[in-house]
Amino acid sequence: MSWYLQEAPGVNQQILEDAGAHQLTLTKPPGALGALEDVALKMASLQGVVKPELERIYISIFAGDHGIAAQGVSAFPQAVTTEMVKNFATGGAAISVLARRLNAKFEVVNLGTLFEVDDHAQIIDARIAPGTADFSVASAMDKEQLEVALAQGQNAAQRAKGNNSQLFIGGEMGIGNTSSASALAAANLNMPAKELVGLGTGISEEQLPMKVKLIDQALALHTSNEPMTQLQHLGGFEIAGLVGAYIRCAQLRIPVLVDGFISSVAALMAVAINPSISPWLLYSHESAEAGHQKVLTALQARPLLNIGMRLGEGSGAALVVSLLQSALALHNDMATFAQAGVSEKE
Amino acid sequence: MSWYLQEAPGVNQQILEDAGAHQLTLTKPPGALGALEDVALKMASLQGVVKPELERIYISIFAGDHGIAAQGVSAFPQAVTTEMVKNFATGGAAISVLARRLNAKFEVVNLGTLFEVDDHAQIIDARIAPGTADFSVASAMDKEQLEVALAQGQNAAQRAKGNNSQLFIGGEMGIGNTSSASALAAANLNMPAKELVGLGTGISEEQLPMKVKLIDQALALHTSNEPMTQLQHLGGFEIAGLVGAYIRCAQLRIPVLVDGFISSVAALMAVAINPSISPWLLYSHESAEAGHQKVLTALQARPLLNIGMRLGEGSGAALVVSLLQSALALHNDMATFAQAGVSEKE
Repeated sequence: MSWYLQEAPGVNQQILEDAGAHQLTLTKPPGALGALEDVALKMASLQGVVKPELERIYISIFAGDHGIAAQGVSAFPQAVTTEMVKNFATGGAAISVLARRLNAKFEVVNLGTLFEVDDHAQIIDARIAPGTADFSVASAMDKEQLEVALAQGQNAAQRAKGNNSQLFIGGEMGIGNTSSASALAAANLNMPAKELVGLGTGISEEQLPMKVKLIDQALALHTSNEPMTQLQHLGGFEIAGLVGAYIRCAQLRIPVLVDGFISSVAALMAVAINPSISPWLLYSHESAEAGHQKVLTALQARPLLNIGMRLGEGSGAALVVSLLQSALALHNDMATFAQAGVSEKE
Repeated sequence: MSWYLQEAPGVNQQILEDAGAHQLTLTKPPGALGALEDVALKMASLQGVVKPELERIYISIFAGDHGIAAQGVSAFPQAVTTEMVKNFATGGAAISVLARRLNAKFEVVNLGTLFEVDDHAQIIDARIAPGTADFSVASAMDKEQLEVALAQGQNAAQRAKGNNSQLFIGGEMGIGNTSSASALAAANLNMPAKELVGLGTGISEEQLPMKVKLIDQALALHTSNEPMTQLQHLGGFEIAGLVGAYIRCAQLRIPVLVDGFISSVAALMAVAINPSISPWLLYSHESAEAGHQKVLTALQARPLLNIGMRLGEGSGAALVVSLLQSALALHNDMATFAQAGVSEKE
């Protein structure tokens, strides 16, 4: 059996109950911390302890170029993928700034930028090809390339485990990858492209019908219902890297905090490939990208934040970590009614 | 002229433009950080610098009891106000935990608990009376009591200024204070009580009509359109403390991060009393309390978070500070396209 099909462990139901009982003793009305209470219980059940911790964060950014970009589906030139890989590593990108704030382990996995990138301590050079093929006319990658991309994600999860990381965030960078993600979601959810295509990094409303048409063309060409095949035909190297990382993190008991549209589509594909990983995926935010809400609904995901972000890179997930940490601090450190001598509900 | 009517300074429009121009040079698609971009510009315009900072946070919790509590409008006994004042000071309450995470200056201003509280370094004993009068049958306070409560809020703002605080959060504690806040909002927005009354700390759906009826009774008794008089007739000591603090913070150029329902009603009254303070108020979250959305709409407020919190104490605002800090870190520390050698939008 392929590594990515192996079942992930379940959550700890006894700890979930115990943590819930603990929560009811804290000096606040039951439920008054809203979704923060659910976050604390979820993390308790995943870590298998009543008082979970969240200090060691691992952030892997997967980068890859897309053949579809040649069709003009992005507002930015394709060179930006390569340029941003360097910007991640040298600390100037949004995710770099947020990773520093979290004191997170941070790495960039280059799975296939169009151009070569100079060596850098934070960049893992794992270029499979200088970008995928244009999926509107061919398969984005061959089967072996897909396996390599998944394995690179697996490796990132292994490194996170080696660091005793308590949370994994996968980011992505790839000019054209909202097109790939929209195509994957449309294929997997069996919806027409227009339901899942948005403005990405900022194409104009006038350019949108062309993006929709290209993706519909790709969906007519690639008709498989099988998620691994969909990923091979329509995916990107960086999306496949995320899929591999998410699956392996779940198998290794590392909770994952999913970022925005592209990352959620990777989660959708990962869960389609291996449904047992689902409990290990937490969702951070609903992005401004048009199709994200539909993907989140399919995943039964209820992210914490909805503030119109649409950057990718793992940035929304990194932003939300502090909310998770606050949720755990409250769960772990608040006084109980008995400790504080506070009267309970009448 | 009373101190609370003195005009607050305006925001710095030139800095707002300069900060906006700076933001457009950062290595991300324009607008891709969503509301975080607005937060950074807002803070820049308030602090009067292109790259604003947010390190020194001041948190004042105002506490007071409510005569209306005797009517059974709360799920908790009235003694909880007094007990929670101690819990705040000894570090066991939700806001205490969050304040520690922020390394914030933290104090509790006791404006009138039913019972006395032992001396504590973090508690300012400023009890006006052992609670307000029952506003369903009488004026909650007399004019002098209102002036004292406002002045105690003013003092808290002065202390924040003395600490060079870059953000003020006001919290509140007072069993029965969703009733007072609902009555104030209904009076000020000229709406029937049922539009603004919710379950508070957790009364049952069966108890709700009684709460609505009591507040409608109070609205029939107290018919003034004048916000200071509404505050005197229907308010609480802790709500008046917040009003005074918000107004004085704005006059002293300290941005305020407003918490949930009660705090937003305090903001509503503060703006009604002195509209010039409005630009200095930022909004943190939309709570689960039924009337909050209507109050936020009246204030044209768009808070960042909506995760079903309904605790008060300033807890939602304290939670959101990390999002503001991240917004500023991104605005201040991201590389520009020129610095990073990244190609711009085509």
